Amino acid sequence: MKFKNMADMPIGIFDSGVGGLTVLKEIHARLPAESTIYLGDTARVPYGIRSAETVIKYSLENGAFLVEKGIKLLIIACNTASAVSLNIIRNAFKIPVLGVIEPGAKAAVLATKNGRVGVIGTEATIQSGAYGRTIRDIDKHIVVVERSCPLFVPLVEEGWLDNEVVELAARRYLAEMRLSNIDTLVLGCTHYPLLKKVIKKVMGDDVVLIDSAIEKAKNVTKILTSSGLLNTPETPTFRKYYVTDCPERFQQIGKRFMVDSLEDITKIGVSSLEEKAIEFKNAQCAGGLI
Amino acid sequence: MKFKNMADMPIGIFDSGVGGLTVLKEIHARLPAESTIYLGDTARVPYGIRSAETVIKYSLENGAFLVEKGIKLLIIACNTASAVSLNIIRNAFKIPVLGVIEPGAKAAVLATKNGRVGVIGTEATIQSGAYGRTIRDIDKHIVVVERSCPLFVPLVEEGWLDNEVVELAARRYLAEMRLSNIDTLVLGCTHYPLLKKVIKKVMGDDVVLIDSAIEKAKNVTKILTSSGLLNTPETPTFRKYYVTDCPERFQQIGKRFMVDSLEDITKIGVSSLEEKAIEFKNAQCAGGLI
Repeated sequence: MKFKNMADMPIGIFDSGVGGLTVLKEIHARLPAESTIYLGDTARVPYGIRSAETVIKYSLENGAFLVEKGIKLLIIACNTASAVSLNIIRNAFKIPVLGVIEPGAKAAVLATKNGRVGVIGTEATIQSGAYGRTIRDIDKHIVVVERSCPLFVPLVEEGWLDNEVVELAARRYLAEMRLSNIDTLVLGCTHYPLLKKVIKKVMGDDVVLIDSAIEKAKNVTKILTSSGLLNTPETPTFRKYYVTDCPERFQQIGKRFMVDSLEDITKIGVSSLEEKAIEFKNAQCAGGLI
Repeated sequence: MKFKNMADMPIGIFDSGVGGLTVLKEIHARLPAESTIYLGDTARVPYGIRSAETVIKYSLENGAFLVEKGIKLLIIACNTASAVSLNIIRNAFKIPVLGVIEPGAKAAVLATKNGRVGVIGTEATIQSGAYGRTIRDIDKHIVVVERSCPLFVPLVEEGWLDNEVVELAARRYLAEMRLSNIDTLVLGCTHYPLLKKVIKKVMGDDVVLIDSAIEKAKNVTKILTSSGLLNTPETPTFRKYYVTDCPERFQQIGKRFMVDSLEDITKIGVSSLEEKAIEFKNAQCAGGLI
């Protein structure tokens, strides 16, 4: 696709699967005139149980695919990918790259009154310690309590959002968190906002829940506005989706996340992602960063 | 590795992750003198939520990797991969290839008295209809009731084998199955035998549970014995494991499945699997099936 200038280009956003649609939904709500290209790596989802090395490889491939389409901004919507690969991706591409950890961490620091913040996420996100590090970088006195909740993603994917199974699972995962006297809890995974009702019920009304998707969208609005990269009114807006597997399943589960009807979905093979990454690497070796 | 004759070669077995260890455990118990090479595709697990096309691609890559190591028999331990790719894999390699569907289906037909059989498995396995087809091919009068239980795999991976969360999940998934008057239930996923206690509690003592892992191991014993391919006593026995990601996680979760301590684990990149598949394809084009 050809664009007259950078501002007219779409925003690129990738996630391991459908989870990043919570971020996209907030971006569409705040910036309805922006075009977006979303890539869900549904042939290799979930990332949260994989090693950092593997998540980095997959993230670079996703990034190269989107950058090659012509985007003005790359958003890593996946917390796991943000936690382990943000700096590497930032160094790999010339365009601005945003993760989801920093906005969530900043919002938590602003929200906490007693200086005790909880973070829940996938195994890989929690193991990376990225949230704790980022929060303490902003304010070293804040105590961070972290806990992985591996079943939350499959529960959301199953559409079990507020039945007794998900409530019992939440009570198990959050039992220690409830005793730790936190007043703020970061939902450190793009799937978790869909479990807000249950998490609120378990944690009580006094604990503020930080939705990383909303914080991310606020952050994108700020960056595009301040850098003069908002879409010009005369450019037509489009919303395009790519997945590496099961477009029907993506559409069906995605509907739980989105207002958008997810019409324009194209399936691409994982191997085409890999090829794109190799091309990109070769271009890099030849001195030309994309 | 070089072997004097085919009988001395190891058995190759692959699964999307740790689940196939339930099959391997039964093979080790019945055939302790046999050497085995196990491949768990932990960088791309789970297969149960993927399209047939993607599962076939991954299965061919796994098969080519093991066949190239020198094996006398290839076992597809994963129900999903067996359901969608068995015939394609059989046509691709010269050595015997066994899946897990047929032995489970046969055992169910033998076990049922009222001609009503239930099957539970992943989304992909149930959608493929492979169990129902295979059971009705043996006896067309048998009524087959199928149901996918997507959360059972993540519950096992989380080590929640008999707490109240897994029991509630099982009661939800199996509610209709309980009313369907089946007398036999096939556990059509290699993870499910670990939930036997809960499934038995929910379904009641009158329903016979068919463990596809045990049926598979019986089948392997029969085939190796009848074809004279049992390991000769003078050949040293080894047990080798390959994974595409997270060897520590594989070992840790694998211990829930195995008596073996899973010592000899090597991590291989997904890309080396893909390369092996391409080499294999080229060899095939040149007229030489492996």
